[in-house]
Amino acid sequence: MAKIAILGHGVVGSGVVEVLRTHEESIARRAKEDVGIKHILDLREFPGLPYSDVFTKDFDKILNDPEVGIVVEVMGGLEPAFSYVKACLENGKSVVTSNKELVAAKGAELLALAQEKNLNFLFEASVGGGIPIIRPISQCLAANEVTEIAGILNGTTNFILTKMIREHMAFEDALSMAQSLGYAERDPSADIEGADACRKICILASLAYGSHVYPEQVHTEGITKITLEDVAYAEAWGGVIKLIGEVKALENGRIHIQVAPMFVSRESQLSGVDDVFNGILVRGDATGDVVFYGRGAGKLPTASAVVADVIDCVKHMKARKYLYWEDAKPDYVEPYENAPQDFFVHIKGAGTSEEAFAQAEGVFGDIKRLIRKGEEEGEAGFTVNGLGQGEFEAKAAALEDKGLQLLGRIVISEY
Amino acid sequence: MAKIAILGHGVVGSGVVEVLRTHEESIARRAKEDVGIKHILDLREFPGLPYSDVFTKDFDKILNDPEVGIVVEVMGGLEPAFSYVKACLENGKSVVTSNKELVAAKGAELLALAQEKNLNFLFEASVGGGIPIIRPISQCLAANEVTEIAGILNGTTNFILTKMIREHMAFEDALSMAQSLGYAERDPSADIEGADACRKICILASLAYGSHVYPEQVHTEGITKITLEDVAYAEAWGGVIKLIGEVKALENGRIHIQVAPMFVSRESQLSGVDDVFNGILVRGDATGDVVFYGRGAGKLPTASAVVADVIDCVKHMKARKYLYWEDAKPDYVEPYENAPQDFFVHIKGAGTSEEAFAQAEGVFGDIKRLIRKGEEEGEAGFTVNGLGQGEFEAKAAALEDKGLQLLGRIVISEY
Repeated sequence: MAKIAILGHGVVGSGVVEVLRTHEESIARRAKEDVGIKHILDLREFPGLPYSDVFTKDFDKILNDPEVGIVVEVMGGLEPAFSYVKACLENGKSVVTSNKELVAAKGAELLALAQEKNLNFLFEASVGGGIPIIRPISQCLAANEVTEIAGILNGTTNFILTKMIREHMAFEDALSMAQSLGYAERDPSADIEGADACRKICILASLAYGSHVYPEQVHTEGITKITLEDVAYAEAWGGVIKLIGEVKALENGRIHIQVAPMFVSRESQLSGVDDVFNGILVRGDATGDVVFYGRGAGKLPTASAVVADVIDCVKHMKARKYLYWEDAKPDYVEPYENAPQDFFVHIKGAGTSEEAFAQAEGVFGDIKRLIRKGEEEGEAGFTVNGLGQGEFEAKAAALEDKGLQLLGRIVISEY
Repeated sequence: MAKIAILGHGVVGSGVVEVLRTHEESIARRAKEDVGIKHILDLREFPGLPYSDVFTKDFDKILNDPEVGIVVEVMGGLEPAFSYVKACLENGKSVVTSNKELVAAKGAELLALAQEKNLNFLFEASVGGGIPIIRPISQCLAANEVTEIAGILNGTTNFILTKMIREHMAFEDALSMAQSLGYAERDPSADIEGADACRKICILASLAYGSHVYPEQVHTEGITKITLEDVAYAEAWGGVIKLIGEVKALENGRIHIQVAPMFVSRESQLSGVDDVFNGILVRGDATGDVVFYGRGAGKLPTASAVVADVIDCVKHMKARKYLYWEDAKPDYVEPYENAPQDFFVHIKGAGTSEEAFAQAEGVFGDIKRLIRKGEEEGEAGFTVNGLGQGEFEAKAAALEDKGLQLLGRIVISEY
């Protein structure tokens, strides 16, 4: 029997126990060995559970148990998760984690340690919850150059945006609803400010291109400034607003990476990814576009991805060769200001909408007007193509000098 | 250097060479070893290619070359592919194939032989072309019970149906267009009669449930009888018509499996899979619905899946443990007649449409009328729920006894 320990008995941790218990027989068949839980680390008490006897508050008990070959880390957060995971790898135990914060911040270091010790460090559940994405990118798409990845990587913000789009609910109301349904935490900032999506695109970028990208290197915008007016302009343009994490290989050897709400065309496969679902588009030079869709979070989907990694560990106790990336390279991320993008721009002037648009045309040159339902006098929306963020800011300043107010600007996605 | 042989230099075979040559460096990096083509078997002549020197017409030369550890079979068809693949495995060579006909007919036998010899028999490219699906089902979703799989598995028929839906093109015209674009072969029967989709759902069913399902065991309907009237009724119902291969685990331990054109709701992720694209929905008890989308055929997508398998072989020369199923079990496939389904039914009577519908109500009981654009006098369309095919046929006969004509019936999908 393969004996495992689980660090953390929160939503995902209890889900892992549930999946292991309810699928005991089929997991044993697939792993060619029974999988048993020897310890669960949690500082809280869980009396009355059928497995209450395996709880411990002492991490060292797990670390020093030679019977435990696989440790599942589902505590979340950087510390003490990082110290625990590192200690486990140093002590000859393979680690499976769902902790995207940990992988995004310490992936290169932990992968190097795992390789050195010939152990596994697996994290399929850290991106896309129950959607298989880490293995497909590294294995099935191995004969491709991945040119781009673009994904709806955060279910909470996608739920909020879906409510804004479909039911014209204001951002704050949609957020409250997400909180009351348990999709958003009481402090929702990691979701709505884009940090969660940022960690995930960092993991995908590191995996696809082989060098660690840290969240601090990524231009990240959340959805807190998105208004129902923006949603209406997106509709007039022919699409919807989605929070997209994207990374793209550039010809200069660098990558362009960002997290931002974007206009996504109705023709795009990503536009139909609604509610709490995630969708990840991987563009390969040989395969073309491949899209993965499913529940990006939630107790059982995430837990099942963790358990699939555990099965993989049981079957392959030595380091899996497909999963590896180097530490970050200097000058590897293209400065955000440089990358030319298309934008939607929303302005307001003192006169008519036509006058506001004409002034914008004077500043931006070749732009295309969008007219939303219920447009107010003086308000104008337009799209402009192929501008760097730096260049955009200069133009926006020129616009403000003319007495126009910049209400917002949103990236237009290519997918 | 890992030396491989390729059996066949048709569309996929030449694509495999192209992918290996254009991605030489990255493949070597991922495989941790150079991958070189030592032989290509083809009866035709290919003078003037930069690799013309590796062609051979003699299979035994490959079979008896101890340097060749991996053989790629991309000839298609059952023979001589089966004899060659079997001989290769018996002679200690791992095999990678894109040949769905071979895997659907001989998968269990070849997998058993590969296990016995501790070799790989890999076939990621046999389903979904460049879409990763074989590995995700067997590895990433290993901690789930897969309750259902439903897929748009044939790009040619999906292209034809898309033309019928979007441009109201008649079936024959859309087929001609597919042929002139190279999407359909001169003899398109394997596509339009459903045989190709049938082979693919057999492979997925075998993999997901562990027992081989043979194409002969599967109720298969093609799209040749689908009319523009059906398309209009589907629209009135709120969906589109797609050729779906589906398999479902039943509580009695059997599986329900079929290939048929189906009404698919616009709410379904499968409804947005258009043109030559494929989409495969895998429903797990823990993950919920996961959908894989991409190019299901084509030279480079298919070739890149083949090469990814080759890389996997180079990295793991011994039999991969995740890929295996037993031979067929008796009484494993539920008789098609028994499985209750929802149907769309299209009839024509001598009187008014209202009269025709009223007569159908008399026979079928609780049915729901659909009215299509341009409905003709005497014509009626309706949906009926929860009927076995056997029961349906009895009712249809009763309808014909009353002088009504059955113009068609189409399964309504649950996805």
